Amino acid sequence: MDSIASAVMAKRFGNVTNFEQKSTKLWCRYVSKAATKTQMEFDYDGPSMKTSVPGPRSQNVGAVNFFCNYEESRGNYLVDVDGNRMLDLYTQISSIPIGYNHPALLKLMTNPHNLSTFVNRPALGILPPENFPDKISESLLSVAPSGMSRVQTMACGSCSNENAFKSMFIWYRNKERGQTAPSDQDLSTCMVNQVCESCPDLSILSFMGSFHGRTMGCLATTHSKVIHKLDIPSFDWPIAPFPRLQYPLEEFTRENAQEESRCLEEVEDLIVKWRQKGKPVAGIVVEPIQAEGGDNHASPDFFRSLRNIARKHGSAFHVDEVQTGGGTTGKFWAHEHWGMDDPADIVSFSKKLLTGGYFQRDELQPDKPYRIFNTWMGDPSKNLFLAEVLNVIHRENLLEEVTRSGKALLKGLYELQGQYPNILSRARGQGTFCAVDICDDETRNSIMLKARDKGVILGGCGDRSIRFRPALVFKEYHVHIFLNIFSDVLAQLK
Amino acid sequence: MDSIASAVMAKRFGNVTNFEQKSTKLWCRYVSKAATKTQMEFDYDGPSMKTSVPGPRSQNVGAVNFFCNYEESRGNYLVDVDGNRMLDLYTQISSIPIGYNHPALLKLMTNPHNLSTFVNRPALGILPPENFPDKISESLLSVAPSGMSRVQTMACGSCSNENAFKSMFIWYRNKERGQTAPSDQDLSTCMVNQVCESCPDLSILSFMGSFHGRTMGCLATTHSKVIHKLDIPSFDWPIAPFPRLQYPLEEFTRENAQEESRCLEEVEDLIVKWRQKGKPVAGIVVEPIQAEGGDNHASPDFFRSLRNIARKHGSAFHVDEVQTGGGTTGKFWAHEHWGMDDPADIVSFSKKLLTGGYFQRDELQPDKPYRIFNTWMGDPSKNLFLAEVLNVIHRENLLEEVTRSGKALLKGLYELQGQYPNILSRARGQGTFCAVDICDDETRNSIMLKARDKGVILGGCGDRSIRFRPALVFKEYHVHIFLNIFSDVLAQLK
Repeated sequence: MDSIASAVMAKRFGNVTNFEQKSTKLWCRYVSKAATKTQMEFDYDGPSMKTSVPGPRSQNVGAVNFFCNYEESRGNYLVDVDGNRMLDLYTQISSIPIGYNHPALLKLMTNPHNLSTFVNRPALGILPPENFPDKISESLLSVAPSGMSRVQTMACGSCSNENAFKSMFIWYRNKERGQTAPSDQDLSTCMVNQVCESCPDLSILSFMGSFHGRTMGCLATTHSKVIHKLDIPSFDWPIAPFPRLQYPLEEFTRENAQEESRCLEEVEDLIVKWRQKGKPVAGIVVEPIQAEGGDNHASPDFFRSLRNIARKHGSAFHVDEVQTGGGTTGKFWAHEHWGMDDPADIVSFSKKLLTGGYFQRDELQPDKPYRIFNTWMGDPSKNLFLAEVLNVIHRENLLEEVTRSGKALLKGLYELQGQYPNILSRARGQGTFCAVDICDDETRNSIMLKARDKGVILGGCGDRSIRFRPALVFKEYHVHIFLNIFSDVLAQLK
Repeated sequence: MDSIASAVMAKRFGNVTNFEQKSTKLWCRYVSKAATKTQMEFDYDGPSMKTSVPGPRSQNVGAVNFFCNYEESRGNYLVDVDGNRMLDLYTQISSIPIGYNHPALLKLMTNPHNLSTFVNRPALGILPPENFPDKISESLLSVAPSGMSRVQTMACGSCSNENAFKSMFIWYRNKERGQTAPSDQDLSTCMVNQVCESCPDLSILSFMGSFHGRTMGCLATTHSKVIHKLDIPSFDWPIAPFPRLQYPLEEFTRENAQEESRCLEEVEDLIVKWRQKGKPVAGIVVEPIQAEGGDNHASPDFFRSLRNIARKHGSAFHVDEVQTGGGTTGKFWAHEHWGMDDPADIVSFSKKLLTGGYFQRDELQPDKPYRIFNTWMGDPSKNLFLAEVLNVIHRENLLEEVTRSGKALLKGLYELQGQYPNILSRARGQGTFCAVDICDDETRNSIMLKARDKGVILGGCGDRSIRFRPALVFKEYHVHIFLNIFSDVLAQLK
């Protein structure tokens, strides 16, 4: 009954104000016999652990953490093959939007009219299904970022960024070329990879700590961990420092503004320098919050200035929302927090949107068909799920829920950071997209394993951060189940 | 009744020997009132056209050919939104393995135990579903190329090739490095894209006319059409000539062997030259039949020699079976026609296998987890379909069917080539993976549009070829339906 008890206790002290006033005793697990109802029809009522994880039925192979029973998993709970049921704050690297086995998604599968969408994957670029433009308008275009009315779906996040980069290169060269057609000589030269007007030595500016994927174009803009890049050839593209801010942000506004200015100056210097090197910056790519690189935030002012710098130098501005998009920051897109009418030229997505792809401003649309193209160009079965996910987000006001849960989560982290200053620091977040730093890498990993054995799945990022990436159906009472267990783990470390 | 009539006629003269003896009159459409049964429960009995294509309900947008009604499509027939039913010899750029709405695949969708596989897409690299290794053994590993016992799934063909390239780079550098660990200095340098021991200036050798995908690593090895490459920065990697053979192959063995020798010499020269340039060739990538580039064949001898050249120079050998794999050449993999125990180090696939991925020899397995990694690492719902596709191929002896249909198709093309020497030339093929050249690009496109209006979907490739890419359920009587219509089109051109 331990797990139910914690859920009940969490609900009882769920009000944030009460919650803050409690002493550290609150965090100890004590048993209440009161029963509880979950607030979600398809959720479990708490973690339930039968073995340590990975258990006997999970063999460990390479990067595999453990094997899962997806059929038994529900809502915020991932069940493993040993029957352990864990509250999931990592959600398949932030890619499960509305929890496991959401009834609305299961229902889609039982509609016989939907079956052919799964069974016959089309070459979407040439032979789209009936009403495809209408379906896209109702789903993806209903959440188009400000200023964008075009979307291109792709299979995954890397393909999305690769093709977004290509769109920026094509746009940049068309702009430079004007009405002049490429010469036959140039066309032959570009066929054999030799630098010329048609195979130009253009670059994409990225930031230290960024992660934009691991195919070779993306990888040239990824700088979060050595293991991603080791032994893979790359492009000589400029890399600017990303602001290293102090948290909580509101307590360090002056210092943080200085740090951001320093980084923005460096961006402009690099653009000038790379143009002089003959490798002009066709586009700037940036995450609204650097995720894989350690949950590094920057202010709306930083991004507004960066957008202006891109415009001033004639570079496209690409916001990579693969991890931040889909509601997890409390707005559908993290860049909405910047309050801009014209936040970007390209916004890419994947993960919680279930399909990859990118939105773009009209100017970024290639001038000819087949310039951006591949066999599948996405997957209509993923679009079908996404449309329903958007309905659920709207119907259940999940963005508000995320904002509420996120506040409770961050307050809980602040409180624990106050209690365990030698272990925790730099708690930060937007919505439930939160993180906290641990004193060192070894302690971080030990905390994550201990939490898992108590029924909570966490993910790491950066050198020594824990990132929280629950689904959008992570409610305030789930926050308290988590905080309770996390507190137990920390107490045992001391 | 026209379409039924042609099907009947085709079946009546389905025997290849008879078929060849008929005069050109055979090719004219004449009406028979006899009824017919299709040989497949889920197929239509012939094309049925209501409008020209694209019809009034298909709006043409960019590359879009027309909009489709996938629910009504069956077997070898694609139905459009205007109710036109077309015999499909292009199958979504060769990516539909066993026809539209195959009952075996629809049945999978009605099994309640399968639903969670569609609804909960896992991060397969860290949290695979229960019994995942067994499922992979039963499906993908049951068709592993000779000498390979490892497979890595990916989302699409481009991602598969990108990651295959990365595996070759990692393998190559580990081989060069031996037991020495990379220095800290090197690790920092590779994080900022600067050439060093850990960000080495390695290359992949590819062939003119090849197509390996359009993300930036793949694109550096793609040389089939300018539209793919224009304005995208590339790597300075070596490109060898691919043999330009004369057809039928058996009539030009001496000339073709000479041409192949010339190309192989060039390969060796380029490997030496690029090593001298400081950009060693870590791997060679080649298609068993260049598809997008114009259905260019080479002999088993050519590939055996190429494999030996790779081994001699310490380069990995990567066979890209994205388009040739899955049974369309009459063997499951096109490289099986080479008759080698050790045909390659890496074999990549996608399209008809429904999931992307690649097989590799043990030595090519990266030495550490997370060196090859992304969020999804494939999609178990595609693996589920693939396992059933493999069952159907086996149960229905589809590779034999493909061989039989392919022979009938190629004989028909030879016959037509004899009749229309000013229009058709260079008929060639293996299994149903056939092609024929048309006198010029304009005539090619006109033939394809006319065939479509008569109920046959064809695809182009190269400068002026038509490629045939039917599903594996394309039977001999479908061949005759096609040849009959194609003959009509050619007669009208004359």
